[in-house]
This record gives sequence, C-alpha cells and structure tokens, in this order.
Amino acid sequence: MKEKYAAATRELKRRLGARVDVSEKGRFAASFDSSKVSFMPAAVIKPRAEKEIGVVLELANRHRVPVTVRGRGTTLMGSAAPVRGGWVVDMLALNKVAVDADAGLATAHAGATTQAIQDAAAKLGWFFPLDPSSKAYCTIGGNIACNAGGMHGGKYGVTRDFVVALRGFLPTGEFVEWGTATKKFSAGFNLRDLWIGSEGMLGIVTGAVLKLLPQPAARWTLLTSFADEVSALKAAKALFRQRVVPAICEFLDRESVVCAERAMKTTIFPGQAGRPVILLEFAGGAAEIEDVKATVLAWAQEHSLGFREAKSREEAEQLWAVRRKCSGAMFELGDSKLNEDIVVPMRSYEKFARFLAGLKRSAKLAIPTFGHLADGNLHVNIMYHRADAAEAKRAEDAVQKLMETVVALGGAISGEHGIGLAKTPFLRIQHSPAQVKAMQAVKRALDPKGICNPGKMFEPVRIWKFTKLQVSFPWDHK
Amino acid sequence: MKEKYAAATRELKRRLGARVDVSEKGRFAASFDSSKVSFMPAAVIKPRAEKEIGVVLELANRHRVPVTVRGRGTTLMGSAAPVRGGWVVDMLALNKVAVDADAGLATAHAGATTQAIQDAAAKLGWFFPLDPSSKAYCTIGGNIACNAGGMHGGKYGVTRDFVVALRGFLPTGEFVEWGTATKKFSAGFNLRDLWIGSEGMLGIVTGAVLKLLPQPAARWTLLTSFADEVSALKAAKALFRQRVVPAICEFLDRESVVCAERAMKTTIFPGQAGRPVILLEFAGGAAEIEDVKATVLAWAQEHSLGFREAKSREEAEQLWAVRRKCSGAMFELGDSKLNEDIVVPMRSYEKFARFLAGLKRSAKLAIPTFGHLADGNLHVNIMYHRADAAEAKRAEDAVQKLMETVVALGGAISGEHGIGLAKTPFLRIQHSPAQVKAMQAVKRALDPKGICNPGKMFEPVRIWKFTKLQVSFPWDHK
Repeated sequence: MKEKYAAATRELKRRLGARVDVSEKGRFAASFDSSKVSFMPAAVIKPRAEKEIGVVLELANRHRVPVTVRGRGTTLMGSAAPVRGGWVVDMLALNKVAVDADAGLATAHAGATTQAIQDAAAKLGWFFPLDPSSKAYCTIGGNIACNAGGMHGGKYGVTRDFVVALRGFLPTGEFVEWGTATKKFSAGFNLRDLWIGSEGMLGIVTGAVLKLLPQPAARWTLLTSFADEVSALKAAKALFRQRVVPAICEFLDRESVVCAERAMKTTIFPGQAGRPVILLEFAGGAAEIEDVKATVLAWAQEHSLGFREAKSREEAEQLWAVRRKCSGAMFELGDSKLNEDIVVPMRSYEKFARFLAGLKRSAKLAIPTFGHLADGNLHVNIMYHRADAAEAKRAEDAVQKLMETVVALGGAISGEHGIGLAKTPFLRIQHSPAQVKAMQAVKRALDPKGICNPGKMFEPVRIWKFTKLQVSFPWDHK
Repeated sequence: MKEKYAAATRELKRRLGARVDVSEKGRFAASFDSSKVSFMPAAVIKPRAEKEIGVVLELANRHRVPVTVRGRGTTLMGSAAPVRGGWVVDMLALNKVAVDADAGLATAHAGATTQAIQDAAAKLGWFFPLDPSSKAYCTIGGNIACNAGGMHGGKYGVTRDFVVALRGFLPTGEFVEWGTATKKFSAGFNLRDLWIGSEGMLGIVTGAVLKLLPQPAARWTLLTSFADEVSALKAAKALFRQRVVPAICEFLDRESVVCAERAMKTTIFPGQAGRPVILLEFAGGAAEIEDVKATVLAWAQEHSLGFREAKSREEAEQLWAVRRKCSGAMFELGDSKLNEDIVVPMRSYEKFARFLAGLKRSAKLAIPTFGHLADGNLHVNIMYHRADAAEAKRAEDAVQKLMETVVALGGAISGEHGIGLAKTPFLRIQHSPAQVKAMQAVKRALDPKGICNPGKMFEPVRIWKFTKLQVSFPWDHK
C-alpha cells in the first residue's frame, strides 16, 4: 500500500512538512478504530489549521489517494478504519470550543470532544445534551459522521438536532460552509444535513455550530422493576401515553441486569434481583419536576413490580453506574459480541420483546439487551465464543434474523452507530435498490474520484471474520 | 408550451384518466402561486393515490416534461410556479393524517394542512408546534419543500426539526422511503434532510412522519415596549442571557407598530403608541410558567419602557391579532412589497438595527420590519410604488444591500421561505461557487434530466419585474 501512494505522499510532505507522519508507529496507531481491525495507511496527517485539510484533499483528489478521517476512533463500526490504505487525517489537534452565551450556540472544531463542548457550555449555564457513552473521548466530528445519539436522544434528539452549521472541505479540497450560526436557514439545498451521518464519505467536516439548551435546574431519578421484558416494554408505552418526556428512559433486560449485578457485586434493586428494570431520569425546572413526579409515581404504582427514587445525586449516580457497567460484564457470556444498535418503533415494542425471547432460545445464545426506550434504540448484544464455529455461525444467523425483523417491524438497523464496515451486510435490508442507487449517485456527484473513506457503507464486508488486534482502549466496555 | 408536451400528455391521460385536467380553467388555476406570476402548464394532475405520482414522474422523466408540485400555493417565492410549463401535480387530495398517541408521532400525506396536523395532534394531547403564518391553508408538503418555520422556531425549531421520515418518489418515478417512524436513524446517507428545503427539485414528497411534543398546559403573554429598535434588540439579547426560552418572541419596529395601529384603529400599548414592541409568549407546565415569570418581569422592569401582561387568553389573542395585522397594513406605504425573510445572528442584532435605520434613510423608503427574535429571523418589508421607476430602483438597490449586509454579518438570505424564483438573484451572495457547484452536482445526480421544478434556485430571475395577476387569496396579508 505504502508504495502505491509514494509519489503523492512525497508531495504531501513537501506541502505540509511535519504535519505528515510516515513512521511505522504513527501509521499503525492510525490503522484501526474500536472495531480493532488494522489496515495500514501510507501516511497520517495531523492538521493544526483547517486550510491544511484543503491541501490534503486537493492532492488526494489529484492523485486518487484514499482519505480516511479519524477523531478518537471510538467507533465500533470500522468507520474510521482506512480499509483501502492511503492517508489518514487525525483531527485531534483541531479542538477549539467557543460559546456564544446570549445566542446559546457553541462553535467547535471537529476534533473537540463531546465532553469538552458540554463543559464549556455548562460553565456559562448552557447544556449540550448529546451523550454517546464514549463522550469523554469521542469527538464532535465523529458524532457528526455517524449522527451519534445516546441516552438523551428521546427527549433532546441526536447530533443532527443540535447542528445549525458545518464547515469543511469537499473531496476536491474546496472550502465550504453549510448553514449559518443561526437557528433558521432555508437558502439552497441542505448539504449540512447530508453531511451529517455520511461517515466522512462526502467531504471532511472541520467545524460545527451547535445549538445549546438552558441547563436544567433539577433532576429526578426513579428505578422501576418488572416481571419480564414484555411487561417492561408495555409499561414504557403506558408511561409515554401520559405525555411525560423523560430525559432518560433506560431499559435493561434480565441478562443485562444479571451481568451488571455480577460486575458490581451488588443487587441493583434489593428484593428484585435479576429482574428487568427501567431507569428513568427527568430534568427541568424545579417546579416542573415536582409537577411530573405525581404522574410518574402513579404510573410506577400501577405498572411496575417495585420502584425506588434516588434520594440524592450520589444515589442517582450509583444507579447510572450500574447501567454503564452492564455492557462490559457481558464478556462473561462469550468472548465476542455482535453489538447492534437497532431501532424499534414504539408500536412494535411487545412484538419485538417476544421475538427477542424466541431468538435467544433458537440461537442458544445469551443476547443481553438494553437501551433507550424513549426513542426505541436498543443495544442487542449477541454474545458468542469465537473459537466455537457452530456458535459463531448461530450468532451470525441471529444478527441476520434480527436485522430482517427490525426492518419488517418498521424500524432501523442502526440508530446511532452508522454503517461503517460492520453493518454493510445489512444496508440493503433497510434500503431498496432505488434508495441505494440514489445514495451512490450522490456519492459520485460530490466525490467523483471516490477518495473519501472508500470501501464503507455500500460494499458488504463481514468485519467480524477479520482477526482483531489485542489492544484495549480507555472507552472499552470490557 | 401545450403543444410541446402534447404526446406525453396524451399518454399521461391514457394512464391516469380523470386525474389529468387539461382544461384552460384548471391549468390557469395551477399556473401561479402567491407570487402571482402566471406560467401556463400543459396539464394538472390531481393524484388520489401515492403510486399515481410514480406514474407521472416515470412518464415525465421519459419524455423530459417539467414537473412542478403544488400544495395550496401559499409560497411568496414562486417555488410552486411552473415557470417552464409542463405538468403541475396538485397534492391537495392526498391529505390524510394519523397520530400514534403513544409514540408522539403523526403520519401525514403531503397535502395535509399544517393546521390539520396540529388539530389531530391536539385532540390526543399532543402539540405540533410548526406555525407558518399561513398554517390554516399551507400543506406540510409545502412546509417540507421550503423548510418552513414560523413564530415558534426559536424554541421548537423549524420543519426539519419535526420530520423523522419522508416517503415519495425520485425524479425517475421510483418509490423511496428516507428514515423510519422512529426518533433515531443512522443508516446510510441522510437523503431525508436533503429533500427538506429542496423545493421539489430532487423528487416528490408524498408523506411524512412528524415528531410531536406534549401539549403545554399553560401559556403566558407579555407585551413590552422600547424607546427605539436598537434598545429593543439589545434588550432581547439580555433576555436570552437569562437562559429563558420563550415559545414566541416577536419584534415589531416602529413602522410595523404604526401600520398595525392604523389597521386596527387602536393603540397596541396604551401610553406607548408608535413605539417598537416585543411580544413574548411562554409555554409549558403551570409550575414551569410560574417559575419563569419572576425572571422575565425583572428583565422587563430593567430593560423596557413599559410592559403589560395579558390577563386572559382572550386578551393574549388580541395582542397576537395585532401582530398578524401589521403585515397587511403595510400596503398603505406602497403598492408593492419586497418581503425578505432574512436571518441575523444574535451577536449582530444592534449592528443590524443601525444598518436598517440607515437603509430606510438612504433608500427614502418605508421598510417596516418585524420578526422572530429567538432565532433572528426578521421579515424586512421594503415598500415602494411600482409605477414610480426611481422608487422601484431604490427598492431593488435596497434589497441587494440588505442581502449583502445580512451575509456579511454572518446571517442568511432566507430563514423559512426558501429561494424559489424570488431569491435567485441573491443565492450567490450566500453561497460560494464551490457550494453552488456541489448543490448543482447533487441536482444532476438525482434528477439527470432536470425535470423536477426546473428554473428554480440556481438561475437568477428578477421576479418582481414580472406583471402580477390581480388575484387575492384568503391568506393574503392585504
């Protein structure tokens, strides 16, 4: 690979000097993301000014060099893996954040972490609700690339709902701005939102203007437990029927609860060990929260087996810690995980719960499932032992069946992770030939030479068959 | 024009029979929108089933017949005027609305009015906040075409913020669905949002799934008056600095107030006649509203010349009636109006107020201005007498200067109306050559034969030079 782009890489070094790293070590570090499958690039570029990205793309476009952008590489989908080699652009040095405290807008470089934006906003009384579980590490550029969500999605929305403007470069190296630092914009085709979720395949985002909300004054946390998954999901629907909007509504099925309890060496809900739970958080003005409590407690009384309010912020934090631990603990059930962030429409909740129970039985696999009930985005974790060929085959069949069922129920194969490499085998379950053709036409129109993150989205790859690196990241669930 | 597409139209009639109207009267009625400039089409199609639109497009694409979609034709921009003739698709018969009361989602055909969706939602305790001033007439398809907004935009967002899925047809006649009836979706390029605001140039939307919010239990209205425009806009910034989010924050400058007072034969704010005002509405839970009142009243005490709470819903309605009347009354200041829905970033509010005062003086024209301060979307109404060539020239120069200034201040040439024909001369002030080129590449990719709403957006036309029809609409401001 290296040799293939040698002349182009020499020219790149002449233009950008020390920004370009061709060392073995530097290239290896940029060769994989959290999918842990390595593809060596010819060079890594670490820009310190936005215009340097224009130089990279102009050269890449001229010499047909693949360009893959990475933030922190937290994606599990392989979206940041340079599968065709070429050049990797590492955005981490472009990480400034500024907040307009009157307008409630943040301006951030693509390399700023989601947490850094939240912190900058919070200092001025504003709230940036985007909360992917890796938010301390992942960058807003990465969030934009896969239209990331998180637990707050049901109430506050996903990345797309916070982006008012983007800036960056077309695959040709031309600078562009989509939208303005205002909450309204209706002038020309909406290429801003086309870029969101396009996984770096239509250009490179260098900065964003983001909408903020007032920091909620109060929070209230309630833990509820249920006899089984069907009753839990049915109860959730009854809650939403009350027209209350929880900031978070997290569901953990029995297997997830058992995993979390083992990992924490504690019972989540004393007296209700091993039962599926829904963990609720409400956020808003103090009076608003008081208003909502009565409704929610009456609902819990009627629908749950038991419920427990967090008496303090600390107690609430303990409950959320349990939620965060459940994912890592799953590796006791298998050494490999197919983690699918599917979305189920609310009208299909019970049907899906029944399907999942059947899938666990027929696949003879543990499939702990948890997720965000306010928007139907569930993380279905198919656990298996990689060395056991029969088990691996059953896992692969289970994923296929899961994806087909989700789409048949009117849902989506991904709510917040994107397609990358990992979901490429399922894209055509979601999208008809006409839809895929339209997407590919847009790709060719904006990136005629196909240099931006090639090999992703449209070409089916079974990434779970590749050998994984034995590396660990601070954001690993394990 | 009619002869040009005669063979294609005959085939269309064979396929769709009575859905196709080639009568002089039918074609004339579909020849213009609220820009009131007429372009006769060869036929009008009134589909009763979505699939009929696929037939129209497949034929149009084969025979290269221009296709323009219309809802009620409320757009002022000429977006629904069939400027190249061909066929007009009238969506009004496709107007079903259904609400999923648990999930808080509405499913609507493109021909449903915004009001019909609001009403269907309200019946089930849900709230659809989109409120273009023509909402009783305009269709959701039209809202989607221009990414419509309204007074609620600052708090609740614009059309784009409510659309979770779209369905419809590509210019080739192929059926597509973008997104699912869920609040999260991250699978493939986001052509849903690319369609929003694309003014029917990339396909035809036949239906949408829309996000609803819980119906607010309480509302509170406050009228505030100011010495001049600069103080009013400065005060608005001070209000937003308190991290309160009004559902509506409408500004009327002196000229708008005078117009409204003449039209209503009353004083908006007794004792403050002719002064610029800001009309505020807060919406939410009863306790939440009580919470916010203290903050807002303290702000009014400090920043306004005078303030007055609406004591009842009826009194509030009277205040909003004043706001709605101001626009029509402007025709006392000139028989013609260049109505520009520009957007100004909050940081530039005072600067813009000073610019506008200067523009009024230098152009020697009345330019009453009102609009939505929570999102900076201001309606600048340049009034002139069409028969007076010098005045018309000054109006045209003023528009040009306005657009250049707005973009220089970091704002937008349109917040909620779109480009259509009317804003085509200004598109390149907003967008660089690279940006326009990228948009045109996307257009060619999805509509290679250029049949969908041709002649719009990219080709500069001075529509105000055309002769206007002497017709009036129920939604006319006059």
